[in-house]
Amino acid sequence: MTAHPADLRNVFSGNEGDRALSEALFDVLREATGDGVGITREAYSERESLALDLVEAKARELGLATERDAGANLVVTLEGAEPELPFLACGSHLDSVPQGGNFDGAAGVIAGLAIIARFKEEGFVPRRAIKVYALRGEESARFGKAYMGSSALFGKLTAADLAVRDHATGRTLAQCMADIGVDMARVEKSEPLLDPATVAAWIELHIEQGPVLVARDLPVGIVTGIRGNVRHRNVECIGEAGHSGAVPRWLRRDAVFATAELITHLDRHWRTLLERGRDVVVTAGVLGTDPQEHAIARIPGKVSFSFEVRSQNRETLEAFYDLFLSECRLVGEERGVEFSFDRRLESAPAVMDPGWIARLKAAARGLGLPDEEIPSGAGHDAAVFANAGIPSAMIFVRNEHGSHNPREAMAIDDFLAGIAVMRAAIREAVQ
Amino acid sequence: MTAHPADLRNVFSGNEGDRALSEALFDVLREATGDGVGITREAYSERESLALDLVEAKARELGLATERDAGANLVVTLEGAEPELPFLACGSHLDSVPQGGNFDGAAGVIAGLAIIARFKEEGFVPRRAIKVYALRGEESARFGKAYMGSSALFGKLTAADLAVRDHATGRTLAQCMADIGVDMARVEKSEPLLDPATVAAWIELHIEQGPVLVARDLPVGIVTGIRGNVRHRNVECIGEAGHSGAVPRWLRRDAVFATAELITHLDRHWRTLLERGRDVVVTAGVLGTDPQEHAIARIPGKVSFSFEVRSQNRETLEAFYDLFLSECRLVGEERGVEFSFDRRLESAPAVMDPGWIARLKAAARGLGLPDEEIPSGAGHDAAVFANAGIPSAMIFVRNEHGSHNPREAMAIDDFLAGIAVMRAAIREAVQ
Repeated sequence: MTAHPADLRNVFSGNEGDRALSEALFDVLREATGDGVGITREAYSERESLALDLVEAKARELGLATERDAGANLVVTLEGAEPELPFLACGSHLDSVPQGGNFDGAAGVIAGLAIIARFKEEGFVPRRAIKVYALRGEESARFGKAYMGSSALFGKLTAADLAVRDHATGRTLAQCMADIGVDMARVEKSEPLLDPATVAAWIELHIEQGPVLVARDLPVGIVTGIRGNVRHRNVECIGEAGHSGAVPRWLRRDAVFATAELITHLDRHWRTLLERGRDVVVTAGVLGTDPQEHAIARIPGKVSFSFEVRSQNRETLEAFYDLFLSECRLVGEERGVEFSFDRRLESAPAVMDPGWIARLKAAARGLGLPDEEIPSGAGHDAAVFANAGIPSAMIFVRNEHGSHNPREAMAIDDFLAGIAVMRAAIREAVQ
Repeated sequence: MTAHPADLRNVFSGNEGDRALSEALFDVLREATGDGVGITREAYSERESLALDLVEAKARELGLATERDAGANLVVTLEGAEPELPFLACGSHLDSVPQGGNFDGAAGVIAGLAIIARFKEEGFVPRRAIKVYALRGEESARFGKAYMGSSALFGKLTAADLAVRDHATGRTLAQCMADIGVDMARVEKSEPLLDPATVAAWIELHIEQGPVLVARDLPVGIVTGIRGNVRHRNVECIGEAGHSGAVPRWLRRDAVFATAELITHLDRHWRTLLERGRDVVVTAGVLGTDPQEHAIARIPGKVSFSFEVRSQNRETLEAFYDLFLSECRLVGEERGVEFSFDRRLESAPAVMDPGWIARLKAAARGLGLPDEEIPSGAGHDAAVFANAGIPSAMIFVRNEHGSHNPREAMAIDDFLAGIAVMRAAIREAVQ
């Protein structure tokens, strides 16, 4: 899939270096960390370290200064003219889920590297330093916890997080972090490894993990916020089992019909909120009658299901959650069933910086690209930087087949468009 | 629970014999076939034979003639004045599910016995003979097939039915029937053991297996018909899985939301049909997302569920089934999902005889009892007799907690009311 060929003239003029660097780095990563099915570079593993080494080698080849920070992340720096100014940070993560794709994470690291490589090549000296981060440990697949690398930077890993064991090796997150050189004395004291006051902004390019840019035929989108969520892993609807032939409608307390009505009501409310311009998605990913007692000829007395609402806006999350509880009560009273809930889980939304959103949109328009806004439904390290008080922003690049699978499909032309937007916005901000 | 004490004066006058006989027989059956939890008298088992023996002994004690027919059922006869007339048959079955209740089936046999015992005691000679059947093999628990005893009477057991093996013993239905003395040569040739032309009517008293009589505070009800059904064991709704945060509503093909909407639509249609006076119940007893792929943060791409509609009326069954298919298409188009269906299963409704319904209702009114009509949602031997062309009727007796469990609860006073109605109607028909 190639996008808006007419519009990309500005993007592609003089970007031969970007293309060569990107293709070379994606290739070397794919070759080194391919697993036969997809790509495997698990959080705080040797293969993750290998990925960092490969990117570092390329950065040095380009004459850029590299180091490992106290979190064992790779940092590539283009020095600025005024070293006392807070630096601009960009990048993403280099780890992947097992049998994942090559673009989730790595694209953001390569984009940052391409941007400062060109600046250096052109002799452009920014006022403030630009640091490209190749973070570790973003994916939750290995330890059940996401954003470990960025969380460690801001002293946000708890003792409980650090004690979680990898299923395969039996080693704790703390042990695995120590193995590859993280300064665990500071991490265990919840001491920040990076002072947010020294960071002017965090800019992250990432493949879109949903289908919106594909559906709208857009190569890139500017992220407005990262959705938070409210969840219940398990809600139970308790009615009364009975003979499916012998109990008339007015005497039934059918847990399936009640749950179906509840979900249908939630769907109506969802549609209404969208019409009113709210950002919200609702999912019941796990649903089922009780295998211990269900039967075709038995009125189902129990249904279990998961509930999840996501939004960029905290008020919308809470309002929808209230609506959910209220509908449970309403349907329960109407149908003689009762809904019970396990512990409420939540994750806060992260708002992207309005100034940076405007700057990225202007950069896109300046390149003849659409400046579409898009929410991020998946979580990203950018949420951790934003919630540490650092103005943060993200560029999404069109991608087919979602992520966390080897079928991820990002066209290099779209990636180059994303780099061009990011470079233009950063250039403006640091000159 | 005791019912309408004022109304039961006529019922209870002179019924001391009914009460004594009923309590004695229920006690002896409970004692002999109790299993510690409930009652176990499995189809074509020794315990079923024991139950027949106990009832037969009591019948002989009362001076009634007994025999075993070619199906090894117990038949107790009160001879009529005109032996050439077709006889009136009544009764029910004596087998039970494992750990079942003492009343499901046995109540109908005891009712028949009480009726002819009193006729004999009173010196009442009917024009036509009255035969009380204690049938075998009504419950499907052992061989997966219901109404084996009555089906055998009309040559309706197939080779496939007869070849089914009991899980516990590994023996086939045919072997188990042969063990207890069924004339298998005739059964295997699908030869009727009973000529329907020789049977004037089949009258069966049974506990209600639903909660309607309890809810309406009625001791008895007159059955209008036995619901048939149309079923699919498994319907699949296929949508598309995806990241629950990253896919907006307009790009979702969520199998759970689609199935919930389908069920909610079916519920609306059901309500409308009831308002228009149709007899129908609808159930999706088994429902679930796919455990192989479902997750809280994953849009469900697949839901499986069972579908069942039951009605006394064949046209209503077909009309609702058409509606179901049409809604699947509609919801499928609207939501980008597809519904697929396994083999359609069906069982025909059985209509009770209008003349007998009227006679039973008149008998109830004559005794000062309500003459409430009620459909039978569960299947009964009466359906087999009716579908063999024999005018058939049923009286339901109020019962709590459904059936097929030890918590069945029929009050003896209600049972005596049922016997009184049945006796009055039979007396009128045979004098």
